[in-house]
Amino acid sequence: MQTMDAIRKRCSLKTHLSSRPVDAEDVQAVLHAATLAPSARNTQPWRFVVVQGKEAVDSLVDAAFSEKSAVIREAPVIIVACSRPADGATVEGREYYLYDLGSAVQNLLLAATDRGLVTHLIASFDEDALKRELRIPEDVRAVVATPLAHPSTASYDEAAEERLRERSRMDVSELTFHDVWGKRIGHM
Amino acid sequence: MQTMDAIRKRCSLKTHLSSRPVDAEDVQAVLHAATLAPSARNTQPWRFVVVQGKEAVDSLVDAAFSEKSAVIREAPVIIVACSRPADGATVEGREYYLYDLGSAVQNLLLAATDRGLVTHLIASFDEDALKRELRIPEDVRAVVATPLAHPSTASYDEAAEERLRERSRMDVSELTFHDVWGKRIGHM
Repeated sequence: MQTMDAIRKRCSLKTHLSSRPVDAEDVQAVLHAATLAPSARNTQPWRFVVVQGKEAVDSLVDAAFSEKSAVIREAPVIIVACSRPADGATVEGREYYLYDLGSAVQNLLLAATDRGLVTHLIASFDEDALKRELRIPEDVRAVVATPLAHPSTASYDEAAEERLRERSRMDVSELTFHDVWGKRIGHM
Repeated sequence: MQTMDAIRKRCSLKTHLSSRPVDAEDVQAVLHAATLAPSARNTQPWRFVVVQGKEAVDSLVDAAFSEKSAVIREAPVIIVACSRPADGATVEGREYYLYDLGSAVQNLLLAATDRGLVTHLIASFDEDALKRELRIPEDVRAVVATPLAHPSTASYDEAAEERLRERSRMDVSELTFHDVWGKRIGHM
């Protein structure tokens, strides 16, 4: 898939998860993509817990996710993205472990989209319960989780169609300033 | 460019910047890619200041960047990625403005790579000086900056070759646990 298509088509599709197994090679590939992100001082502070199999997935969902996200129990794989603040760089007083994790997981999501796999980034979970369930050390933050699954529809595009039609994003012109903060130019 | 090629080829190339102008359409396209990233509660807390033109770029570099990064003054465009903590979501006690910005900027970098443009993510700058220079409000964090430029070589691939050869990344197996933290499996 072309890069810009993957960037455009990546969206949150927890209601379109097939329980069909995902190949180990696909899991490996999306994790590898994550590792190619940049990080401050090349600290690579991203860590992943890959939860697979009906029993483990059910147990995790029951322990840590709300009713609203419970549909992700359909997924054959849930990836929990973590970062330990001490593993990241602090540059001129700014901590980068969360920023860097965001970059890595974005690569992961795009690589999944590229393979026709569906994802759905979830921040809303009970971190303490999740960490207990996955035996994640106290000094590590569990930041986001995503199911990784084949679409329950005939194709990724079919799964994504409605969601992409309803996508709501601010326009570049609302988010971008020129030369100095607050200065907008119309035609950019 | 194929998605996985963009993910693989994106690297930090501040020593290969051409001062040749970058089209406004290219600037717009990479910023648009940024806006398509996911964000917690769809808050879209990313903001960008686009600094263009020799005088503005020189002034910014002199004010806020160290000697080590001064070579980015060759770039026709510098994009400063910002986020206001209050614009981001806080989910179960976790702030997402930095994580979300990381996702958006990764899209931006990949879109630039896709267009054959070179970037170089920089965290090391004097944030106070940069914010003064760009009149960024006190409650906004300036988190990373990147030049956006054509390569000074015949092609992107030529600019990136050495850097990619020397790339140092931890292996997926070092960063990934299975079912629970600490549990590794060899063949994944």
